[in-house]
Amino acid sequence: MTELVARTAAAIVIGNELLSGKIQDANVIELARTLRGLGVRLARVVTVPDDPDVIAAEVKALRQHVDLVLTSGGVGPTHDDVTIEAVARAFGVEVVVHPELRALLEDAYRERCTEHHLRMALVPAGAELVGTDGVHWPAIVMHNVWMLPGVPEVFRAKLEILRRRIHGPGRIFSRAVLTELEEAELKPHLDDVVRRFSDVEVGSYPRWRDSTYRTKVTFDAGREDRVAAALEAFVALLPAEARRSVE
Amino acid sequence: MTELVARTAAAIVIGNELLSGKIQDANVIELARTLRGLGVRLARVVTVPDDPDVIAAEVKALRQHVDLVLTSGGVGPTHDDVTIEAVARAFGVEVVVHPELRALLEDAYRERCTEHHLRMALVPAGAELVGTDGVHWPAIVMHNVWMLPGVPEVFRAKLEILRRRIHGPGRIFSRAVLTELEEAELKPHLDDVVRRFSDVEVGSYPRWRDSTYRTKVTFDAGREDRVAAALEAFVALLPAEARRSVE
Repeated sequence: MTELVARTAAAIVIGNELLSGKIQDANVIELARTLRGLGVRLARVVTVPDDPDVIAAEVKALRQHVDLVLTSGGVGPTHDDVTIEAVARAFGVEVVVHPELRALLEDAYRERCTEHHLRMALVPAGAELVGTDGVHWPAIVMHNVWMLPGVPEVFRAKLEILRRRIHGPGRIFSRAVLTELEEAELKPHLDDVVRRFSDVEVGSYPRWRDSTYRTKVTFDAGREDRVAAALEAFVALLPAEARRSVE
Repeated sequence: MTELVARTAAAIVIGNELLSGKIQDANVIELARTLRGLGVRLARVVTVPDDPDVIAAEVKALRQHVDLVLTSGGVGPTHDDVTIEAVARAFGVEVVVHPELRALLEDAYRERCTEHHLRMALVPAGAELVGTDGVHWPAIVMHNVWMLPGVPEVFRAKLEILRRRIHGPGRIFSRAVLTELEEAELKPHLDDVVRRFSDVEVGSYPRWRDSTYRTKVTFDAGREDRVAAALEAFVALLPAEARRSVE
């Protein structure tokens, strides 16, 4: 697999433990930041239970709409690890043993390696292993679907493979202004900037009980000069008494 | 609005800032735990951008499949707050000023209250305000869709309203065993318990680099005696040397 350009991505986060509130997800923000750094737009994240029908339907639908689908979770050896089977179902293929993964597992577990460990060598037929220097285990990739493990430490390690293999159409530039004003007070100024800079995404985020600022306003675009121009136009509209800082 | 029984729920989490990795979501786990405590099954969480078409389509689709839909985010006065409009669109109704919300806003902001503040009095036509003692601001509810704010402190405050107004068909009981064994070693025992206790949801969660245990196995069901029986059956299968604790 060579370098791939992806404009958009979606993530499917798999696990009953997230939907029952047993565990706080830690992977989405890491993925979102990684994709952002690559200039890939994360269009949607769906969190679903360990149900192969639900996951398969989601994979099938999302991969038509975005360039890249990433799954998190459900890739271990136990009964509740159903992601590989679900992705295989979404593509209408069988689940098969990948000889390279099998060899890696046998090497890692040696005489302790059982048929149960070898369940982790299963992949959708036609899937490829994508690795990179410095990351021991490869990622399992089926067309535009990357199956990543849910354990946060391992998930993060595999993002390094993504960083080396995928990139977006261009960098996304981002800046922010922190203001003392409430959103309702900022609204006319925001509307003005949004109207004049249609190519810049303007976000407004109120802070609750924070003494340092009341609202953070962000400016994002593919052109650094346009981000700077929108930010400067906004700052120029702010009343002089509104203390502010620029990031 | 009187008490409502909901079997299933879904959440729509709204915000470009989550998909771009600027902010870590803090609301889903609170919502998941609240619903869990009420015995309501959270079936799906979808994170989407500040796009009224996307949000409207999601509301329309999800509310057919679950008893209760909750949205988080996008309810302030600025251009990127599009949830109210999107929910109105999903129901095919107009956005209108709710007189009670308007009065609350005028009372809160007094002489500082402008037309921009009053944008927060807009609701989908037909929506009701659902409040409870001790929570100052009511929640905006349109049929089975609850529109909650994204700011975590305010989101959490509104969950109290949910707790007083919604409950599931019955409590969900949950217990766990921490073991020294890896998932692959536990697999035959897990499969045995899963087969014998089809009414108990068994989850298996490996821990990475934790000295206290290797795998956490959870047992969830609507009957406490069945949870206890499944847990005991599993513990009985564990080899004596596997150190373990029970929660």
